[in-house]
Amino acid sequence: MPYVNIKITREGATAEQKAALIRGATQLLVDVLGKNPATTVVVIDEVDTDNWGIGGESVTVRRRAGR
Amino acid sequence: MPYVNIKITREGATAEQKAALIRGATQLLVDVLGKNPATTVVVIDEVDTDNWGIGGESVTVRRRAGR
Amino acid sequence: MPYVNIKITREGATAEQKAALIRGATQLLVDVLGKNPATTVVVIDEVDTDNWGIGGESVTVRRRAGR
Amino acid sequence: MPYVNIKITREGATAEQKAALIRGATQLLVDVLGKNPATTVVVIDEVDTDNWGIGGESVTVRRRAGR
Amino acid sequence: MPYVNIKITREGATAEQKAALIRGATQLLVDVLGKNPATTVVVIDEVDTDNWGIGGESVTVRRRAGR
Amino acid sequence: MPYVNIKITREGATAEQKAALIRGATQLLVDVLGKNPATTVVVIDEVDTDNWGIGGESVTVRRRAGR
Repeated sequence: MPYVNIKITREGATAEQKAALIRGATQLLVDVLGKNPATTVVVIDEVDTDNWGIGGESVTVRRRAGR
Repeated sequence: MPYVNIKITREGATAEQKAALIRGATQLLVDVLGKNPATTVVVIDEVDTDNWGIGGESVTVRRRAGR
Repeated sequence: MPYVNIKITREGATAEQKAALIRGATQLLVDVLGKNPATTVVVIDEVDTDNWGIGGESVTVRRRAGR
Repeated sequence: MPYVNIKITREGATAEQKAALIRGATQLLVDVLGKNPATTVVVIDEVDTDNWGIGGESVTVRRRAGR
Repeated sequence: MPYVNIKITREGATAEQKAALIRGATQLLVDVLGKNPATTVVVIDEVDTDNWGIGGESVTVRRRAGR
Repeated sequence: MPYVNIKITREGATAEQKAALIRGATQLLVDVLGKNPATTVVVIDEVDTDNWGIGGESVTVRRRAGR
C-alpha cells in the first residue's frame, strides 16, 4: 500500500529507465518492509529545468554554467 | 482552507470531468468537516502512463497487456 | 488507481469523519471517472495550526483573532 | 536541506520570474532558519487552470467570469 | 538532485528500516539515471492508519477485519 | 491562489520562525507574480531526522557524525 513519488528533472529519461525506477522502488518496499507490491504505487514527476532550483539558482542556469 | 490533491493517469479526462472532481471534493470537505468552500483548494495532476506504476510495472505496460 | 491527498488543519477531526473523507473521495473517483475503488488510495494529513498559513499569517493567529 | 514546492497556475510565468521564486525561497530559509542554500531544493509546479479549483470551481471558469 | 517521497502507514518501521529505504532509494537513482547521491533527498512520511484509505475504507478498519 | 509547501527537519523551529516562513513565502508570491495573499496557502511539514535522508544516509546519522 505504500506510495512513492520520485521527482527528477526532465532531461530525457526513457520509458525503460522509468520502468526500472518503478520496478526498483516497488522491490525496495517489498525487501525492507515486506509490503505488498500489488498495491504499491509509484509516481514519477519530470520537472522542467527552469522549474527546479538548488543552491538558489535554476538547473537551467547551472547546466549552462557547466555545474 | 483545506487543500486536496488528486492524481490520476492522463487518459483523457475532460474539462467537465475535472470540474466535477473540483466541485465534489470541495463539497465533501463542506459536508464532512464544515470547511469553508471559498478557501478550499483542489489541484488535479494528470500523470503520463509511463510515469505511473502499480504492482511494479507502468500503467502503459498494464494497459498493453489488458490489465 | 488514483491517489488523493487531503490536507486539513489538526483541529479534532474524528476517526469517523476521516473515514467519511476516505469513503467520499473514493466514491467521487468512481462516479466521475469510473476508477476502480480497490486501488484508489486516500491519504489525510493533519497539519498543526502553527504550520498552516493563509493570508500571510498562521491559522493559530487567525483563530486567536476570531478569523 | 529544506525542500520547497511552489504550485501556481500556468498563466505565463517567465523563466526570470521562476528564477526569482527559486532565489527568494532559498534566501527565506537562510534568513529565518540559517539553512544551507547549497542543499536547499525548490520545485515549481505550473498547473493548468482547468486543473486548479478554488471555491468549488476551476480557475478557467473563474477567469472567464472575471473573478 | 532528485527528490523521493515515500509514504507508508505508521506501523512500527524501525530507524534501521528507514535508513535502508533512504540508502536503497538513493542507490536506485544512481544506478538507473546516474544521479549524484550527495544531492539526492529522501523524505519518509509515516501516516496513521486512520488517515490512510484504500478501497474506500481506512487501514485501521482493514487491519481489524484481517484484511 | 498559490500553494507553497515547505519541508524542514524537525529540529526546534519556533512558532515565530514558522510565522516568518509563512509571511515571507506569501510576500514572495506577491512580489514576483502579483498573487493575492488572501488566498495564498503555506503548509510547513516538520520531518523527523530519522525520516530525512541526503547522500544516502539519514540526518540523524549525519548529525551524530558532525556533518
